[in-house]
Amino acid sequence: MKKERKSSGIIVIGNEILSGKTLETNSNFICKELFKIGIECQEIKTIKDKKSTIIETVRYFSEKYNFVFTSGGIGPTHDDITSESIAEAFNQKLVLNKEAKIRLESHYSDDVFTKARLKMAYLPEKCQLIDNPVSVAPGFIIKNVYVLPGVPKILQVMSKQVIKSLDEGNRFYKKTVSTVLSEGIIGGYIEKVQKKFTKLEIGSYPYFKKNKFGVSLVISGDDEKIVNEASFEIFNFIKLKKGEPKIF
Amino acid sequence: MKKERKSSGIIVIGNEILSGKTLETNSNFICKELFKIGIECQEIKTIKDKKSTIIETVRYFSEKYNFVFTSGGIGPTHDDITSESIAEAFNQKLVLNKEAKIRLESHYSDDVFTKARLKMAYLPEKCQLIDNPVSVAPGFIIKNVYVLPGVPKILQVMSKQVIKSLDEGNRFYKKTVSTVLSEGIIGGYIEKVQKKFTKLEIGSYPYFKKNKFGVSLVISGDDEKIVNEASFEIFNFIKLKKGEPKIF
Repeated sequence: MKKERKSSGIIVIGNEILSGKTLETNSNFICKELFKIGIECQEIKTIKDKKSTIIETVRYFSEKYNFVFTSGGIGPTHDDITSESIAEAFNQKLVLNKEAKIRLESHYSDDVFTKARLKMAYLPEKCQLIDNPVSVAPGFIIKNVYVLPGVPKILQVMSKQVIKSLDEGNRFYKKTVSTVLSEGIIGGYIEKVQKKFTKLEIGSYPYFKKNKFGVSLVISGDDEKIVNEASFEIFNFIKLKKGEPKIF
Repeated sequence: MKKERKSSGIIVIGNEILSGKTLETNSNFICKELFKIGIECQEIKTIKDKKSTIIETVRYFSEKYNFVFTSGGIGPTHDDITSESIAEAFNQKLVLNKEAKIRLESHYSDDVFTKARLKMAYLPEKCQLIDNPVSVAPGFIIKNVYVLPGVPKILQVMSKQVIKSLDEGNRFYKKTVSTVLSEGIIGGYIEKVQKKFTKLEIGSYPYFKKNKFGVSLVISGDDEKIVNEASFEIFNFIKLKKGEPKIF
């Protein structure tokens, strides 16, 4: 019997995203890693660095999804309030984590191990550290919530590692059929295919590449055989219509 | 007397974002345009192409924020269910909009004006069209919700135009001070400045550019004079510390 597919949600924390200063790419990275191991991301929410909002959002996501990932707000400055907010979301105290302090001490020489940097060792009472091989200051896991930093280069290394540990081998299967025919032309046919294969998800995505318009049809589902069957049915139809299909 | 600052939220609709297939950039574009005219974006939510989720999210955002922007799901294919979902969110019927039909008819020759394309003229009963100078199929406004397509090139032209119409001249003021000193070194000082200037928002953002680490401090608020005062106070402190400050 197939295992039930696990769900997840991502919370992006940071005023700089909402003011448009920063183009947020962390959620895309996490979504890709989750998709690879068959965990569905149901929702991404970007919120301000505001304690009550963080608390409310983390509680809601933690109840609703199997796994929750947060990005941002665990650095050394006054606007980094994610750790204290998440501690409060789970009714825990924020305390000096000895192991985190040791790691930071070994990284920074005495003269630059400031009070601001020590702040990064204050974590919820009961949490598990997530290693940070780039800049040492750890992330942490509390209940089903994985708390990660906002700097993309650091988040990528750390999230790759924790998401790998969640792999239960329950893959999604996916094929893509691309065509030079536009959505308006093939839309009616694709709708019929979707109605025939109700267990599959068929997405239709127009693109503009190398001065040419086209459409990518993404066929995905739990059963490799059915994904292949639907994909080749679409491929053959587009071939008949001289739509230059490619399948991959 | 100053006008009250208007709030907004963005709903991104599309499975392709949540599977990681597509890096979503529309919300960043909209946030930047909103920031320019002093409208605060409070929240961005990315959700699946699922009717009940779209309805629930649109109703919630429409209640909570002055303006709501949605991106995605108004094209010609079976997975484009945004228009019908938003009609239902406001208890309206989805009907053939005559003006939208005329625009599409004049754009497509008879042989390619398919049923799938006609679908893009089915809109909520009572809505106002948003012009689409790129590919004709209009977006629409219903109550305080601005419904836009997902294709970035089209969304950018359309959103720029509608957001411009919301400008009441109620600007944010912003200065940025950059430094080669790291967050761990200046964090304690910046916290003190933030406590002194409680009406300002001071964000601290580490960066890595041209093989050099540094920090951008973004000082923003409603009052230009106070923004300047705080910014130059920070600038002078960093200069004293030989942190190579730049202000802009």
